[in-house]
Amino acid sequence: MTQNIFGQIDPPSRMLMGPGPVNVHPRVLRAMAADMLGQFDPEMTGYMNQTMALYRQVFMTENRWTLLVDGTARAGIEAALVSLLEPGARLLIVCAGRFGLLLSEIAQRIGAEIFTIDIPWGEVATLKQIEDGIVAHRPHVLACIHGDTSTTMAQPLDGVGELCRRHDVLSYVDATATLGGMPVATDRWGVDIVTGGLQKCMGGPPGSSPITISDRAADYIMSRRHVEAGIRSATTTDGIRARIASNYFDLAMIMDYWSEKRLNHHTEATSMLYAAREAARIMVEEGLEARFARHAAASRAMGAGLRAMGLSLFGSDAHRMTNVTGVLIPDGVDGERVRARMRDDFEIEIGSAFGPLQGRIWRIGAMGYNAAKHKVLLTLGALEAVLRQEGHNLVSGRAVDAALAEYGE
Amino acid sequence: MTQNIFGQIDPPSRMLMGPGPVNVHPRVLRAMAADMLGQFDPEMTGYMNQTMALYRQVFMTENRWTLLVDGTARAGIEAALVSLLEPGARLLIVCAGRFGLLLSEIAQRIGAEIFTIDIPWGEVATLKQIEDGIVAHRPHVLACIHGDTSTTMAQPLDGVGELCRRHDVLSYVDATATLGGMPVATDRWGVDIVTGGLQKCMGGPPGSSPITISDRAADYIMSRRHVEAGIRSATTTDGIRARIASNYFDLAMIMDYWSEKRLNHHTEATSMLYAAREAARIMVEEGLEARFARHAAASRAMGAGLRAMGLSLFGSDAHRMTNVTGVLIPDGVDGERVRARMRDDFEIEIGSAFGPLQGRIWRIGAMGYNAAKHKVLLTLGALEAVLRQEGHNLVSGRAVDAALAEYGE
Repeated sequence: MTQNIFGQIDPPSRMLMGPGPVNVHPRVLRAMAADMLGQFDPEMTGYMNQTMALYRQVFMTENRWTLLVDGTARAGIEAALVSLLEPGARLLIVCAGRFGLLLSEIAQRIGAEIFTIDIPWGEVATLKQIEDGIVAHRPHVLACIHGDTSTTMAQPLDGVGELCRRHDVLSYVDATATLGGMPVATDRWGVDIVTGGLQKCMGGPPGSSPITISDRAADYIMSRRHVEAGIRSATTTDGIRARIASNYFDLAMIMDYWSEKRLNHHTEATSMLYAAREAARIMVEEGLEARFARHAAASRAMGAGLRAMGLSLFGSDAHRMTNVTGVLIPDGVDGERVRARMRDDFEIEIGSAFGPLQGRIWRIGAMGYNAAKHKVLLTLGALEAVLRQEGHNLVSGRAVDAALAEYGE
Repeated sequence: MTQNIFGQIDPPSRMLMGPGPVNVHPRVLRAMAADMLGQFDPEMTGYMNQTMALYRQVFMTENRWTLLVDGTARAGIEAALVSLLEPGARLLIVCAGRFGLLLSEIAQRIGAEIFTIDIPWGEVATLKQIEDGIVAHRPHVLACIHGDTSTTMAQPLDGVGELCRRHDVLSYVDATATLGGMPVATDRWGVDIVTGGLQKCMGGPPGSSPITISDRAADYIMSRRHVEAGIRSATTTDGIRARIASNYFDLAMIMDYWSEKRLNHHTEATSMLYAAREAARIMVEEGLEARFARHAAASRAMGAGLRAMGLSLFGSDAHRMTNVTGVLIPDGVDGERVRARMRDDFEIEIGSAFGPLQGRIWRIGAMGYNAAKHKVLLTLGALEAVLRQEGHNLVSGRAVDAALAEYGE
C-alpha cells in the first residue's frame, strides 16, 4: 500500500457550452450534499413519491409510472428497450443521427429484428415516412430520438402516438437532449415510453434517467414478470412472453419497487434521486413555458451571433433543437485548436462532432442552467476572439451585438 | 401544470446502523458538490485515472482494469455476469443466502446453465465443497458472495482462485458488503472479477460500483467485442463468441472508455465518480489495516453488548462478517415495533431480514463512517432502553459496559 498522493476534488471552473454534460445548477449540487436515508424509511419513500409527481410535470403527462432508472441516460434507453423487446420482436427505428444508431446497437444485443427509416443527418422524418415504415415493416415497437445532439435536429412527434396506436405499435422516444429545454409532450404526442437524462437541459449531473411509461406499456411489461426462463416467444399476442433479459433494467421490478408494494430491488441511488428531485423542482418553480422560452431565446441569440461572425449553421432551419447549435467550421480553421484555445484561454468548452460530421461542425450548447444570456454572450465573444487569433478573416466583430439584438437590446 | 408544493431536500438526521445504505462520510458528500467537467476534459480523465489507481489499493490488486460501473452495486454484478457469460455457458454459484440467489436470478436472464452449491443460511462453503462442485459441474464460471448481508456470514476465499485456474474456470466475487470493511484480497485470492458498492463499508452513497478485472478475464471479455449478432456459441474455446447481451454493461466498451483510447460510451456519472474517488482516498489515508481493525473492533463490541443483554447472535461464530451482526429477536418481542421505536425515539435505523430469517433476526451494521465506537455504544444503549420499554426481561443493563470492555475500557 503506497501513500495517497491525490488531492481533493477541485475541478477548474469551466463553462460547459457543449452538447452536455453542462454546469449543474448550484441548488442541485447542494441537494446532493444531504446524507442518506434507509431505503424504506418513510421519509425516503416520500421523496420517491414526490419525485414521481414532479416528473409527471416535467414529462407533461398523467402517467402513473413516472420514475427514475439508476444510471446515466443510456441506462434509461436500455431499460426501455429491454423491457419492451422480446428476442425476435420487430423494432422500427427512425434513424437520423448517432443516437438512432445507438438504439439499433442496443436492440441488436436484445435479439430484436431491426428495421430503420434512414434520414440524412441534418434532416428529420415526416409523419408520412413513419407511417410508410410502419405499414411496410409491421413492427411491435417504434423508436425514435426527439433531439439528437449529433445532428442538433429535433424530430417533430405530434401525431406519432396516434399513428402507432392505430397500427397497434408500442412507441418509445429518447428525449435525453431535450427534456427540460423543449416541450417533451408525452401525453399530447400519445407515445408510450419516454426517457431522459439530467445532464443536459435539466441542469443536473449525469447518473439518473427519468422515465415515464403509459398504462398500456406498463401492462405489457408487467405481463413479462414471473415467466420461466426458456419459454420464449417473439409474439406479443399469444400470452407466452419471454422474461425481460436484464434484472437491473427490468422495469416491471423497478415499478414494483416504486409502487406502494415497495418490493425490494436495488437500493435507490439516493444522492442521484436528490439531484433529480431538485432539478425538477427548479423547473416547476420556473414554469415550463418560461423555461422553454429561455432556451429558445438563448438558441436564437447564439445562432444570430454565429451568423454575424460569417459562420453557417448546420442542418434544417425548421427543425433545429433550441438548446444546441451546430455550426460549420470554416475552411482553413483547425476546429480542435479552436476548441483547445476556448478551453485554455477562456475556460469555455464547446463540442466537437461524431461520425460524418466529425471535423465539420462544432456543437455549441446553451442547456439548463447554462441557457443564460450572459453565457451566450461570453461564448460568442470568446469564439470571435479565438477565430481572430487564429487568423480567420470572416469575423465581423459584431457577434455580441447581434445576439443582444435578439434579446431586444 | 400545478404549483410546486415540495420543499427542499432536508432529511432527518438518522444514524443508519442497518446493513446499508449507511451514513456517508461528510467529505464524500462535499466532494459530490463539485461542478461538472466535460467527459474528455483532461482534468476529468485525470480524475478517472486517479480513481483507477485508488481502487487498485482498495481491491488489493495490481489489475490494470480497475474502474467504476455507473449504477448501484447490482449494476456491477450484472456487468460482471453479462460480460462473463454467453447464453448456454455453465455457471456454478456458491449459494448461502439471498445474494447467491440474486446471482442465479441475473444469470438466468442471460441464458446461462446454472448449478449451485447450496449451503444453509448462517454457514459457509468449504474449499472441498467448491472443488467438488467444480469437478461435478465443469463450469465456465464460478461465482460467489464474499459477505452476504442476508446471513451476515463471510465466505473464506483463500485458495479459490488457484482452484479455479487449475480447472480453467473464471471466477467472480461479489464483495458489495465487505469492500472497505474487511480485506477484499483480490490478488491473494487469485480471483478474476470482484465488484463492490459504495453504500456499505466504503462510506459513500449507492450509485457507483467499483470493479476489478484480471487480465485473463479482460482478454476473454475483449474477445467478445465486434462479434456479429446471431453468431452464438456457448463454448469459450472455439473462438466464436456471443456478443455481450447488454450495451450499458458491456465491460469491453467500458474498458475502452477508461483506457487511453477513451472510446465514447455513456458519459461517466461525474458526481458519483467524485464520491467514489473521495471514499477511496479516505480509506487509503486511514490505511487498510487500520480500517479493517476499526470495523473488527466495532463488530466485537457490538457482539459483546448484544450478548450482555442476553441476546443470541445468528450464524457461525467462525465466519461472521465484521461489519454487520445478525441477532435473534427474543421470543415475545415484536421485531418491527422495536425497529420503529429505535427510529422514532432515537433516530437510529437497524435492519430487518429476508427470506427464512424474516422476523427471526435483526441485522445491525457498523459500516464505513459508522464503524465508530460512539455509534456502537449509542446503538446498544438505545436498543437496551427500547427492549426494556417493550417489557423484555432479559436485559441486563450492562450492554454498554460490555462493549466498552471490548474497547479495553
